[in-house]
Amino acid sequence: MEKVYEAKKVLSKVARKTSLVHSNFLSKSNKVFLKSENLQLTGSFKLRGAYYKISKLSDEQKKKGVIACSAGNHAQGVALASKENNIKATIFIPATAPLSKVEATRAYGADIALIDGVYDDAYNESVKFQKETDGVFIHPFDDIDVVAGQGTIALEVLEQLDEVDAIVVPIGGGGLISGIAATIKQIKPSCKVYGVQAAKAGSMYESFKEHKRKELHMVNTFADGTAVKLPGKLTYEICCEYVDDIVLVEEDEIASAVLALMEKEKMVSEGAGALSVAAIMFDKIPLKDKNVVAIVSGGNIDVNILSRVINRALLKTGRISNITVELLDKPGQLKEVSTIIAQYGANVIRVRHNQGGEGTDINDCYLKISMETRDFEHFNQIKEALIQKGYHILSVIQ
Amino acid sequence: MEKVYEAKKVLSKVARKTSLVHSNFLSKSNKVFLKSENLQLTGSFKLRGAYYKISKLSDEQKKKGVIACSAGNHAQGVALASKENNIKATIFIPATAPLSKVEATRAYGADIALIDGVYDDAYNESVKFQKETDGVFIHPFDDIDVVAGQGTIALEVLEQLDEVDAIVVPIGGGGLISGIAATIKQIKPSCKVYGVQAAKAGSMYESFKEHKRKELHMVNTFADGTAVKLPGKLTYEICCEYVDDIVLVEEDEIASAVLALMEKEKMVSEGAGALSVAAIMFDKIPLKDKNVVAIVSGGNIDVNILSRVINRALLKTGRISNITVELLDKPGQLKEVSTIIAQYGANVIRVRHNQGGEGTDINDCYLKISMETRDFEHFNQIKEALIQKGYHILSVIQ
Repeated sequence: MEKVYEAKKVLSKVARKTSLVHSNFLSKSNKVFLKSENLQLTGSFKLRGAYYKISKLSDEQKKKGVIACSAGNHAQGVALASKENNIKATIFIPATAPLSKVEATRAYGADIALIDGVYDDAYNESVKFQKETDGVFIHPFDDIDVVAGQGTIALEVLEQLDEVDAIVVPIGGGGLISGIAATIKQIKPSCKVYGVQAAKAGSMYESFKEHKRKELHMVNTFADGTAVKLPGKLTYEICCEYVDDIVLVEEDEIASAVLALMEKEKMVSEGAGALSVAAIMFDKIPLKDKNVVAIVSGGNIDVNILSRVINRALLKTGRISNITVELLDKPGQLKEVSTIIAQYGANVIRVRHNQGGEGTDINDCYLKISMETRDFEHFNQIKEALIQKGYHILSVIQ
Repeated sequence: MEKVYEAKKVLSKVARKTSLVHSNFLSKSNKVFLKSENLQLTGSFKLRGAYYKISKLSDEQKKKGVIACSAGNHAQGVALASKENNIKATIFIPATAPLSKVEATRAYGADIALIDGVYDDAYNESVKFQKETDGVFIHPFDDIDVVAGQGTIALEVLEQLDEVDAIVVPIGGGGLISGIAATIKQIKPSCKVYGVQAAKAGSMYESFKEHKRKELHMVNTFADGTAVKLPGKLTYEICCEYVDDIVLVEEDEIASAVLALMEKEKMVSEGAGALSVAAIMFDKIPLKDKNVVAIVSGGNIDVNILSRVINRALLKTGRISNITVELLDKPGQLKEVSTIIAQYGANVIRVRHNQGGEGTDINDCYLKISMETRDFEHFNQIKEALIQKGYHILSVIQ
């Protein structure tokens, strides 16, 4: 706790006290607030832990510089924290990382070592480099100072909403939730702390449920900021002691949460950042009548990926529908189909009209239509209307 | 001014005091802050004017209900304001409006009249309806109470940053800038007020420069919230008296600003909302050494459109490049081209490999590659490397 209070003082000069925003769309039987760490400098909470850790280094350590291995938020956090402390940072990044994240890290003035291969390859290189230079390796989560830095978020939440009943927190390696849980349970033990992981990267979930630290063979999730195979030793222990429960969310639920945050709250969040919102949206946690804070932990999503998320989520919620209709090759058919669609108030966004395509009779042709619809029911009305008029539906993609 | 102070009191119960966020990427020789009205309830500042206007109606007027015509933010503002005041709202919307906006307005409990045609058709119907029902028509901008409601933003800015030197404001019909300019110039006359319009919808710009109210024949901009043919009578007069200058921005500049707000500030803004940021990014206004506030007026952008904006902006800044390379139809060519691209650190996102396509020799084939690059220079290095190896570049789309 001393460390958390000290971290708060240290961070007051550099980190933003991010705003706590009431969310209308998430509040059903309760009040839900978003702690917007996606609006933190560097686009995620990682700055807090990295900065506090670096500020605690001795002058001699600072002279030798720091080293980190990360493709994402930790890289940017360490880079900015080092710049503010006037020390050299060398960040090892797997060459498969999105260019935008590499560039963002470089822009904070860090030296970038792009390593062919995946995370583990970059990690091995960073270990070698650490031995050569004797620099300080900054762990992304399994470090008491890093955890204390993330804990400052809990102090801010208590200042912003002292009647908070529950906090919902994304989990990767466990640094964020460890800091928050340990802090909040000392000050307000009645406040529940729930963790959320992607079902496809549930290493802390498995460890928590089976009461021992488990390593997964594969983690592959759209919430890439939380793709950690083995939870931290320290963070696992803190979770066991202070966290009330951990739940899982599916990939499509995460994508829907990212989209909902954009549309309803005008906030950009990354997959990992939206885990907490996904868990609340899809009722994974008992939160009735409670004052709930969802930590939106980061916003560093590659815009290319965002563009794909949007399309996928629109399909999954019935707001874009693709339908392929077989047409007789005679005049007026395109007009008739489009009239039916217009009558039902759907908005056509793309049409492909093909003659003699594969899989249809040589005399026939097909019409492939993408349209905006209100929901699945709306789309089904249109489909039924087409069938009633004698059209044969070749396929539907939703 | 009295009205503005009264509006502030009335709004304190319903509107959010939106946060003022320092923007690193916009601050060059100065300090730039974003007034985030995109995070306002209903996703735009329009709630302020609509709510204050409606709160001022007599009981008899309230009983008859209110009427508005809008496809966007004004519709949502009037709908929520009516709901909070327990009165009936009928909103006329052109059938061409995006479904998502129609649904959002409906969700606030308003009656929706979807009218075939464009805005003018919907407007004519709303006038007819007003005559039948004797309800109160809420003008989106040319109304003293509506203007006063928007003026409350200026009071908040002064509270949040009393050393403000300049405010940059998007203009459509002129309601927002009229409220802000009239308010700020009474309290702090030294503070400059600059307006920004889309070059393709510069009706207030033309009027301001030619010293008379001008109507445009066509307005067609991605900043659709500001597509107004004729400025308000009242708002034009206020602009002439209080606004220091008005500048124009191009469509691509607006799209870049929307993208930058997403990537750098993790904020979703609509085209109209980002006009102020576009003007600052592309140096349209002299702001050296100043404390600048940019009003980000709204965030109601259709996600389909957002997805297109992202793609266009990535192309325009050289971050996605499409290249079509002619290949000899022999083994190993795909491998060689991909090796060159990989050597330069670009990330391939889509490949189309076609044999015997149109426009190429019957023995040849082509390879169409979309890749992520850092910038134009990076792409040109790759292009040159391919040419050096003897490849013929058929086309480049950027």
